[in-house]
Amino acid sequence: MQIASTVSLAGKDDLSLAYTPGVALVCEAIAADPSLSRHYTWVPNVVAVITDGTAVLGLGDIGPAAAMPVMEGKAVLFKQFGGVDSVPICLDTTDTEEIIETVVRLAPSFGGINLEDISAPRCFEIEDRLKERLDIPVFHDDQHGTAVVALAALENALKLTGREPGTTRVVISGAGAAGVAIAKILIEAGITDIAVTDRKGVVHSSRSDLTPVKRALAEITADTTGRSGSLADVLDGADVYLGVSGGTIPEEDVARMAPEAIIFAMANPTPEVHPDVAHKYARVVATGRSDFPNQINNVLAFPGIFRGAFDAHATAITEGMKLAAANALAALVGDDLAEDYVIPSPFDPRVAPAVATAVAAAARADGVARA
Amino acid sequence: MQIASTVSLAGKDDLSLAYTPGVALVCEAIAADPSLSRHYTWVPNVVAVITDGTAVLGLGDIGPAAAMPVMEGKAVLFKQFGGVDSVPICLDTTDTEEIIETVVRLAPSFGGINLEDISAPRCFEIEDRLKERLDIPVFHDDQHGTAVVALAALENALKLTGREPGTTRVVISGAGAAGVAIAKILIEAGITDIAVTDRKGVVHSSRSDLTPVKRALAEITADTTGRSGSLADVLDGADVYLGVSGGTIPEEDVARMAPEAIIFAMANPTPEVHPDVAHKYARVVATGRSDFPNQINNVLAFPGIFRGAFDAHATAITEGMKLAAANALAALVGDDLAEDYVIPSPFDPRVAPAVATAVAAAARADGVARA
Repeated sequence: MQIASTVSLAGKDDLSLAYTPGVALVCEAIAADPSLSRHYTWVPNVVAVITDGTAVLGLGDIGPAAAMPVMEGKAVLFKQFGGVDSVPICLDTTDTEEIIETVVRLAPSFGGINLEDISAPRCFEIEDRLKERLDIPVFHDDQHGTAVVALAALENALKLTGREPGTTRVVISGAGAAGVAIAKILIEAGITDIAVTDRKGVVHSSRSDLTPVKRALAEITADTTGRSGSLADVLDGADVYLGVSGGTIPEEDVARMAPEAIIFAMANPTPEVHPDVAHKYARVVATGRSDFPNQINNVLAFPGIFRGAFDAHATAITEGMKLAAANALAALVGDDLAEDYVIPSPFDPRVAPAVATAVAAAARADGVARA
Repeated sequence: MQIASTVSLAGKDDLSLAYTPGVALVCEAIAADPSLSRHYTWVPNVVAVITDGTAVLGLGDIGPAAAMPVMEGKAVLFKQFGGVDSVPICLDTTDTEEIIETVVRLAPSFGGINLEDISAPRCFEIEDRLKERLDIPVFHDDQHGTAVVALAALENALKLTGREPGTTRVVISGAGAAGVAIAKILIEAGITDIAVTDRKGVVHSSRSDLTPVKRALAEITADTTGRSGSLADVLDGADVYLGVSGGTIPEEDVARMAPEAIIFAMANPTPEVHPDVAHKYARVVATGRSDFPNQINNVLAFPGIFRGAFDAHATAITEGMKLAAANALAALVGDDLAEDYVIPSPFDPRVAPAVATAVAAAARADGVARA
């Protein structure tokens, strides 16, 4: 990627205007009225894509330098799909307090913060505290981008299989950033029977080994229905399996799911259940991969979400804005809904504009829009 | 300004390559060999233009938000003149330690650090300590950019008036970032008789009110010749006046300078001596303004300096690289040297390439090049 100028500097006069002395007038105007930076700088259209390199793709803690290609790729996608400028920033610290302080200090330079590939459970605290301290959108994409797209695809899959959210049994494997966020957004969407599993089985309050984040997760998921045991135990009879864990689910466990099951095996590059196996037992199958139908890819969400937030000059990204994004994505499928088409393609040109429009409207409805 | 992609994302295959899963291979390669980030990311070509908004142009401490237009303008100039990508970053802190920590944490994302509009004396400590801690170029442009261009113009002015550095008497008004850096580079260029003045007169060790930075400055300037007194005192008989202070010099003081004097009144937008007045007494007159001949403008230096440092993959910007930049700039004037042409125009297309070539060569000579 590269920087491009939006003005031409062809001679002395252009230079006097874009740089000294002309720029001084702009600075003075903003000093007198900070809201003018919205009109006179690139700040309101630029996202900082920030990582500490601790949870990069499936590669784990590879450090800030090696994380850069992912952040740079993300920046290119922001621009291409959402018309959003962004700057990849890989931090040379993994300390929660230092990351928070650093991002707060950087904030005047950016219109929004996209946290990326920061390992759990630090990612939860970092996002929560930055949201408290900043009046610009803060969005941990590994959580919410994944959750928005998964919900959109699931809404359509439920419709296709004639299920209602309130009576659908969901199993999520993986209690990290994505698993936690998916559970939360499903609850907001009206799904009440959710069991989340980690390596030790269902996350349930009777366990003594839970982190504070997992304990809170247990209280809003398995605790409410009393489900416990192993992943195999809860898959038995489940309507929906959402995999954000990696690893492989034995075929005999998949076989015991409910008829017309829904399987989203989202681990990259190796889905928890290969689509060929999943299709033997499930009616709707989705993965994170582009070489199978129904790709659950964050790029369907984050460019449009920030585009919409920026269009509304939103001070935050609310739960309502995320739900609106999911509903807009799901609605794009429309009458073409089918087993192999529960979510639009990342290259569907309607995606980012539809998401942006819905998100901006939700920002206004939620009272976080400044325009 | 905006972000632009250097790759096209026209379909599924492009997305797989630029983002997941293709990007994972690049990350793994860099994790195994960090030097590969030079080839696979934009990092080695991108400068962070960092300010805390405390000394913006002549406006002073206007804060980070209002400083953004200057940083953004600078980024545009970096690109246009040097082909250098840069990211404007305005920090929400003015604490020396916090600024240093923050920049260190940001460093893996950038190939170089351009400090900008940070007030003295903090700017000196911040630059010095960042240079110690980082293995990428760190350059406070208000100091060194100004110093390089002033030296280049002065070398030509000395040539034109038949002076030798070792016997030239120089007065610098202003003991802030630019004044200190100009004094230092003039000494490296062989000028031995320099007096620097602040609001209280010549900076000299007999004064009891000097900061540590000014004390060190006194030792290498006025102390060596015993000069003291007021600005008017030292201007009497001086060969060269370099103004980086603002304010106005009374005409009668200008009138007492040596015959064929050299006056660079660089304060913006109001030169310390108006060129019409200066020309009555001086043979060579320069200002910071584009509407008079001989514009001393940092844009002649910083794009080429970083271009050269990046081309050599330099780990620092050495004194030798700065001198090389000044000499290259001065040499471009060549046989066209005249009273109204001691420094090239910012729009001379030869400037940045000539500076870059000289700087890269000096980096290799100084042993700081990695390529």
